[in-house]
Amino acid sequence: MECYRLFYWPQIPGRGEFIRLAFQYKNVAFEEINAIDNLQQLTSPQSDLANHPPHFAVPILEVTKDNDTFMLSQTPVILAYLARKFGLDSEQANVNKEVTRCHVQQLTLTALDWANEAHNVHHPCGPTLFYEDQKQAAAEAAKAFRNDRIPKFVRYFEKAITSNSSLTHSCRLIGDKTSMADLVLFQTLEGLYFAFPHAMQKSIAANSVLLQFRQEMAQELQDYLHSADRRPFNDGLFRHYPELDPP
Amino acid sequence: MECYRLFYWPQIPGRGEFIRLAFQYKNVAFEEINAIDNLQQLTSPQSDLANHPPHFAVPILEVTKDNDTFMLSQTPVILAYLARKFGLDSEQANVNKEVTRCHVQQLTLTALDWANEAHNVHHPCGPTLFYEDQKQAAAEAAKAFRNDRIPKFVRYFEKAITSNSSLTHSCRLIGDKTSMADLVLFQTLEGLYFAFPHAMQKSIAANSVLLQFRQEMAQELQDYLHSADRRPFNDGLFRHYPELDPP
Repeated sequence: MECYRLFYWPQIPGRGEFIRLAFQYKNVAFEEINAIDNLQQLTSPQSDLANHPPHFAVPILEVTKDNDTFMLSQTPVILAYLARKFGLDSEQANVNKEVTRCHVQQLTLTALDWANEAHNVHHPCGPTLFYEDQKQAAAEAAKAFRNDRIPKFVRYFEKAITSNSSLTHSCRLIGDKTSMADLVLFQTLEGLYFAFPHAMQKSIAANSVLLQFRQEMAQELQDYLHSADRRPFNDGLFRHYPELDPP
Repeated sequence: MECYRLFYWPQIPGRGEFIRLAFQYKNVAFEEINAIDNLQQLTSPQSDLANHPPHFAVPILEVTKDNDTFMLSQTPVILAYLARKFGLDSEQANVNKEVTRCHVQQLTLTALDWANEAHNVHHPCGPTLFYEDQKQAAAEAAKAFRNDRIPKFVRYFEKAITSNSSLTHSCRLIGDKTSMADLVLFQTLEGLYFAFPHAMQKSIAANSVLLQFRQEMAQELQDYLHSADRRPFNDGLFRHYPELDPP
């Protein structure tokens, strides 16, 4: 029995939300620490880490089991760890478990890449400048993102679902059960529909399996999505600037 | 006994080089396929994947064992897989193996993030436009990268080495043996010294442990680095544009 504490920024869903979805989906309790002082201390070059590698940024997950405690950072590392613990790595009949686990991570990382590219659109010149200081570059970046990258990612994930031979009626990326990759893609789609509603509507056809996927996942997560714990999108990883998503 | 084929672009070191370094370091044979037709076929939305999730991009690693073949894409997934197979996940006395493995991945991903940010500098508005069409945004991105991001990553990796309590005289990121994270950081440093020689010299002090690290790693890899197989940097992931790195 492990206990979990998630260290992440207050208010924004951000990259923390990919992790929260796993806890919520599996109904596993976790504590969340949002105090800026704590976060800065953990990522400071002066912090004393007691034989841990340092953390470049949050999210950071603290895991305690018996009398042993360790910390992990880097979103994909945390997600892969929890996927293993929570059975979100989609075991498939007749497929080697290690290979399936790699494929779940492959799909997870590709969904995270899409989310990261969405962030780069509003911060093309780097995370240390304000959006207002890079609006012109952001407009260029948004155009390429809408015209080239969104359609490419959409085609990729449609292909992943339609080529998943484990499926009968439902839509999932791999295997026939919900995996970490499904949770991460769902959150990425939600963020993109918030940030680029027009571009997403243009790129995703009315009969797309991605729409069915989104609906099924929203259904599975409905208790959490309608709860006060679900943080609304605002000015975090996914941002809606109308000038970056013309009708 | 596994056989490996790496599918990646011809000529450039690119993201393929992180993977090549692992093979070279461990003296494990692999075949490399650079034919554009093959790469496009593997990443095409029309490709028949025989129960594999699709690949968004190269590098792709094909693994064959006995009569079984599977493919992996996403650089971090391939690196984590090979780290496990090749013992590059830095076992440490008295530390849980699974936790160490996660920490190697955490450090690996942070080095890859640094490399990805270096790529974003010359392509701030996206990978589908030419550098020449985004030079002004690139100049802004380069300034923030040189002034804020390079120093931040340098401090982070210096801290990782100096806080690694397994070490006696040598410099490594985790444990006392070379891990996948060391190989990836080494390649990232090489790329950054190629792309931003002035900024790197300004950010890395003459007595920095990173310089000792770089020297030790170059020593360990010297046969490969001096061979004809080592691809020179050119216009791939790391690019040297003098206007982005003023003296």
